[in-house]
Amino acid sequence: MPYVNIKITKEGASKEQKEKLIFGVTQLLVDVLGKNPATTVVTIDEVDMDNWGIGGVQVSELRKKSKS
Amino acid sequence: MPYVNIKITKEGASKEQKEKLIFGVTQLLVDVLGKNPATTVVTIDEVDMDNWGIGGVQVSELRKKSKS
Amino acid sequence: MPYVNIKITKEGASKEQKEKLIFGVTQLLVDVLGKNPATTVVTIDEVDMDNWGIGGVQVSELRKKSKS
Amino acid sequence: MPYVNIKITKEGASKEQKEKLIFGVTQLLVDVLGKNPATTVVTIDEVDMDNWGIGGVQVSELRKKSKS
Amino acid sequence: MPYVNIKITKEGASKEQKEKLIFGVTQLLVDVLGKNPATTVVTIDEVDMDNWGIGGVQVSELRKKSKS
Amino acid sequence: MPYVNIKITKEGASKEQKEKLIFGVTQLLVDVLGKNPATTVVTIDEVDMDNWGIGGVQVSELRKKSKS
Repeated sequence: MPYVNIKITKEGASKEQKEKLIFGVTQLLVDVLGKNPATTVVTIDEVDMDNWGIGGVQVSELRKKSKS
Repeated sequence: MPYVNIKITKEGASKEQKEKLIFGVTQLLVDVLGKNPATTVVTIDEVDMDNWGIGGVQVSELRKKSKS
Repeated sequence: MPYVNIKITKEGASKEQKEKLIFGVTQLLVDVLGKNPATTVVTIDEVDMDNWGIGGVQVSELRKKSKS
Repeated sequence: MPYVNIKITKEGASKEQKEKLIFGVTQLLVDVLGKNPATTVVTIDEVDMDNWGIGGVQVSELRKKSKS
Repeated sequence: MPYVNIKITKEGASKEQKEKLIFGVTQLLVDVLGKNPATTVVTIDEVDMDNWGIGGVQVSELRKKSKS
Repeated sequence: MPYVNIKITKEGASKEQKEKLIFGVTQLLVDVLGKNPATTVVTIDEVDMDNWGIGGVQVSELRKKSKS
């Protein structure tokens, strides 16, 4: 009965991509730890790029720089 | 001074229902552990049904099947 | 299929008290939102009093002051 | 490589204010613990005032009372 | 730069199993979303079985019943 | 009434260092957003180095390599 929370920046992940994440993580817990998939819960948080920082800088700013 | 986070699927919980969750959880911590309600914090996350999976399947898909 | 995380300071909550928290929160979600208890998950984190602060002060220090 | 999650009520924090939070927390971890800022991650959750409670009352209700 | 938190019951997962979870989730995010593994962070919380409930019952009690 | 959770690897942070983190984050929220420190809560999770991964590798392994 594991619980997994995945946080990613909000950059247009599709319903199909989210489905793959949910299925893949659930299967991983079955394969590695023998967990019961029926009670394995996965949630995905999509975080605005202004609200995510790495190295002290907002991702929204990092993305601008990497494009210029 | 407990902190409680409640995650539910985003399916139209009303302001009154959220109020009942917040009040009820706070009261539970007073009753069971004698916690001070004044510093008990509760947050509710409403998660899109595409972003919540159980048994490796998105809730948005589970809801479709249960209706058909 | 809600997921609830309860954080409390580590001050000797008994197994029975934790059972009451788990049962009580699960029942609250049934009563208020009609959620299925079978897939409702509750986890409790007990946090060391040095690792919890309110008002900028560690709970371990607040407890000392309230006793003196 | 710390990870910090900041939850605040959704009340119009600006991009610049979020930048200051991200930079400030990252710098604090460098100053206090000597952590590497390059792998320090900060996320900010802005929570609807109906979904945040303290003392068993929604912040949306507390704000009304403090204005009246 | 995703952040993933995996919560499992504390039942003796080995260092090697944890390594497989960390590697597997990181690779999944590369495969599905093209994320940069170098800044993908995974943490695992092992939760005492008294502190985890499903269906309103502690896992420590569920385990006893399934053995009897 | 913000809530902040800081996750760091368990590598012997002292009580004084944790106090500085709690005080510093609380003050940052006062300075940047004008939040009330009295209801600002900070929790620190110290995560075992086997349970923290970056770049798909456990921190316990990364620390070994950086020393050799």
